[in-house]
Amino acid sequence: MKKFKKIAIYPGSFDPVTNGHIDILERSKRLFDKVICAVGTNTSKSPLFSLEEKLDMLYHTVPKGVAIDSFGGLLVDYAKKIKKEYNANQMIIVRGLRLTTDFEYEDLMFFNNTKLDDSIETIFLPSKQDLLHINSSIVRDVTKMNPDYIKDLDVPKYVKQKLREKYCSKK
Amino acid sequence: MKKFKKIAIYPGSFDPVTNGHIDILERSKRLFDKVICAVGTNTSKSPLFSLEEKLDMLYHTVPKGVAIDSFGGLLVDYAKKIKKEYNANQMIIVRGLRLTTDFEYEDLMFFNNTKLDDSIETIFLPSKQDLLHINSSIVRDVTKMNPDYIKDLDVPKYVKQKLREKYCSKK
Amino acid sequence: MKKFKKIAIYPGSFDPVTNGHIDILERSKRLFDKVICAVGTNTSKSPLFSLEEKLDMLYHTVPKGVAIDSFGGLLVDYAKKIKKEYNANQMIIVRGLRLTTDFEYEDLMFFNNTKLDDSIETIFLPSKQDLLHINSSIVRDVTKMNPDYIKDLDVPKYVKQKLREKYCSKK
Amino acid sequence: MKKFKKIAIYPGSFDPVTNGHIDILERSKRLFDKVICAVGTNTSKSPLFSLEEKLDMLYHTVPKGVAIDSFGGLLVDYAKKIKKEYNANQMIIVRGLRLTTDFEYEDLMFFNNTKLDDSIETIFLPSKQDLLHINSSIVRDVTKMNPDYIKDLDVPKYVKQKLREKYCSKK
Amino acid sequence: MKKFKKIAIYPGSFDPVTNGHIDILERSKRLFDKVICAVGTNTSKSPLFSLEEKLDMLYHTVPKGVAIDSFGGLLVDYAKKIKKEYNANQMIIVRGLRLTTDFEYEDLMFFNNTKLDDSIETIFLPSKQDLLHINSSIVRDVTKMNPDYIKDLDVPKYVKQKLREKYCSKK
Amino acid sequence: MKKFKKIAIYPGSFDPVTNGHIDILERSKRLFDKVICAVGTNTSKSPLFSLEEKLDMLYHTVPKGVAIDSFGGLLVDYAKKIKKEYNANQMIIVRGLRLTTDFEYEDLMFFNNTKLDDSIETIFLPSKQDLLHINSSIVRDVTKMNPDYIKDLDVPKYVKQKLREKYCSKK
Repeated sequence: MKKFKKIAIYPGSFDPVTNGHIDILERSKRLFDKVICAVGTNTSKSPLFSLEEKLDMLYHTVPKGVAIDSFGGLLVDYAKKIKKEYNANQMIIVRGLRLTTDFEYEDLMFFNNTKLDDSIETIFLPSKQDLLHINSSIVRDVTKMNPDYIKDLDVPKYVKQKLREKYCSKK
Repeated sequence: MKKFKKIAIYPGSFDPVTNGHIDILERSKRLFDKVICAVGTNTSKSPLFSLEEKLDMLYHTVPKGVAIDSFGGLLVDYAKKIKKEYNANQMIIVRGLRLTTDFEYEDLMFFNNTKLDDSIETIFLPSKQDLLHINSSIVRDVTKMNPDYIKDLDVPKYVKQKLREKYCSKK
Repeated sequence: MKKFKKIAIYPGSFDPVTNGHIDILERSKRLFDKVICAVGTNTSKSPLFSLEEKLDMLYHTVPKGVAIDSFGGLLVDYAKKIKKEYNANQMIIVRGLRLTTDFEYEDLMFFNNTKLDDSIETIFLPSKQDLLHINSSIVRDVTKMNPDYIKDLDVPKYVKQKLREKYCSKK
Repeated sequence: MKKFKKIAIYPGSFDPVTNGHIDILERSKRLFDKVICAVGTNTSKSPLFSLEEKLDMLYHTVPKGVAIDSFGGLLVDYAKKIKKEYNANQMIIVRGLRLTTDFEYEDLMFFNNTKLDDSIETIFLPSKQDLLHINSSIVRDVTKMNPDYIKDLDVPKYVKQKLREKYCSKK
Repeated sequence: MKKFKKIAIYPGSFDPVTNGHIDILERSKRLFDKVICAVGTNTSKSPLFSLEEKLDMLYHTVPKGVAIDSFGGLLVDYAKKIKKEYNANQMIIVRGLRLTTDFEYEDLMFFNNTKLDDSIETIFLPSKQDLLHINSSIVRDVTKMNPDYIKDLDVPKYVKQKLREKYCSKK
Repeated sequence: MKKFKKIAIYPGSFDPVTNGHIDILERSKRLFDKVICAVGTNTSKSPLFSLEEKLDMLYHTVPKGVAIDSFGGLLVDYAKKIKKEYNANQMIIVRGLRLTTDFEYEDLMFFNNTKLDDSIETIFLPSKQDLLHINSSIVRDVTKMNPDYIKDLDVPKYVKQKLREKYCSKK
């Protein structure tokens, strides 16, 4: 019973999820049969939010129908696992692009992922012009330095609430 | 009778088609329900091959199932026309990316196309590492300067033949 | 009688003026005592609008108080002339920046202008995020390919009218 | 009593101040009514010099008339505070540009600062050609690895002295 | 007794050496009289392999005739020392280039090294197309996340063995 | 009788030769056994100086010992011809790098030249910091727009004289 033929994985650290991420997920949904938002767990840097908090925020904010998951290890291995699980015809890694430095880095990852498994495709979705400015690191910095600006950040309402709680619990 | 839901247009001047173009078409075919290779006809620069020659070369070289077409005017208008004709759910413009300067230019085109019609999506497919070097302009230059190298160019066999004919007819 | 102390020149070809240019002029006005919008006349490429048409469009669209002028020859020589004419303390060349390739080119021009006259300053104003997409070349291309989109272009109303006239007179 | 109308803030970590910073301050002074050299205090990385040492070095080296200050929190908040304090008409953030990667980063900061307060302007001053090579991180690295080169570094004389003291006190 | 006239230093952290490094060494050997592969020892970040392990891997993998060494402090000082030791006519620093961000960084280092000693030359060797994807950081990440892929990495056989040992000893 | 083992070709259009070119030639001379400054003759754009004028200027300005030549067709073919003529061990193409866009273009040429003949090496010499600003196109533009600045251009004295003659003969 083949249900999903083309499955897209949108990997990231989502610390926290922004409107930029949500936009990529919405656009991916229109392109592929199934979209999985996958939180990577082996970045070395200490995150602001725990995996549980990240997953909770995603559950409250991703477009309807988008699956939420987490993975350790190599993205290529995770993609293989999903391919098998869902009996998918084609796995697609989706990456958003904002800057030329993003492109050079993602291009390099594409070359390496292709060496490890050339059946997995990678596509780049250019960031919408009005979302070019936003990324998780700016959200964390602005929040830490002045939580009054949380209301102005391009993140979902639920994330604003969690940012305020995080800020208050830290006080 | 909705037959194709997600239709990708791969626009270009294809003067001539290279293995780089063919690779993007093959990968697009795996991602979408229908792929159209569309030769743009209003570039100002004088091409090496006529539209008829370009279409002929594409007919002999594109992956099976890829449609071949040509268009004048704006890409966005062409995409709208195709959307209506095929009663498509989602139109996708596919662009290959090799260099950071490609990215900056294509990103700008994406911003402008989105202003004109935000229902049309754009995706970037990164060039395969072993095809990074090839583009139509290099094919034309090498051929013009030393046709003995035609055999070494990363273009389909049929294109090599046409390059040789072009070279000979010019002598 | 020193009237203006810091005079900014915003040079360009303005073929035609866009909302991006107007934004740079408005921001320059807030920064300096006098702003001159100066149409360069020795670009080799054949423009869409004549110098007279360009000046007319600027007269109808630049922010109040901005002077309009044209110049041939080197920008540095024009800046020197203006400095003398207005008995200015400081001349400033203003350039808008949208892309990294803009930056590399403008940086090179700055190095060369500084060699010729190091009393003339150059500042870069980053393009507003919502105007990143617009430039004169895109305005010309879209208009030529489909004048129905003139209404959607980020150019002043008066320029839209002139684009329509240009299009009709060409028919 | 409006005294200063256009006030420029040149923010940075100045760890330590270099001739590149001094040049930007001198050029800013010629452009605006008041220039404030503002040491940011919430960078996470452990600096070579303490805030007190940085301020002391600035007091001995900035061009006459340039104010020296420090700030925590967001640059935009600091700019608002200064605007009020001085009853300024226009606040300007000045950033020096050396590389294309500088430009991409600073452009992003400009987009975000504009979202938070669009009355504050940002200008980029291109680095002088003969100062392109210098930055604080290179000063720290060279000093740490071979203090004999302190004499060759493009930093003010007073900073050379402090670098030598820092080196000796560490021995 | 002048034996070597033109001596190239290829500095790096080699953590671990990859086929990309080996290729640069082979090409350098063809260009200069003597090539020294020099492991820098004062990078702050904690390496995967110790200096001894790095040197051991280099001894087993560099092209015949390439000397292996290590250095602390500034590269320029090391180059001077080698110049004297070998009574060389010309010292050359060799750097491989893969990305535009590599180029901007290496260009800056060249400017600074030239300030410290302008008799030492720097050349950039562009990475071979089929080795563009490989770097030591990717080797470390892939190995850590899934040692089964060690066999696929573009590193010498001896390095694969050491990566496996490192992985197993860590278990 | 093998005389020259490592022969470098520095190709270009030299329209006209600048101090930047001369610097690359001087540095190449220190690195290789023989250096050939080779004027390419099949650029399509209409040059300011004829091939004869370019060669004459080179004869009066290149460092002692540098050979001067011209070539049509592909650089790789010219390099092969020279290799045979001189019975060289190793041919090296030398390219100067000033900007990141230079690098991306030259990298692409390297990939393609390597496809055609992988025995020919390419090295990039970074432009000296104080010569970053100069290129032939700027020399032509400045001269055309204001010949009074010829004295300030970073070109050899003999080239200044020829620029003045060219300007006068055109009047």
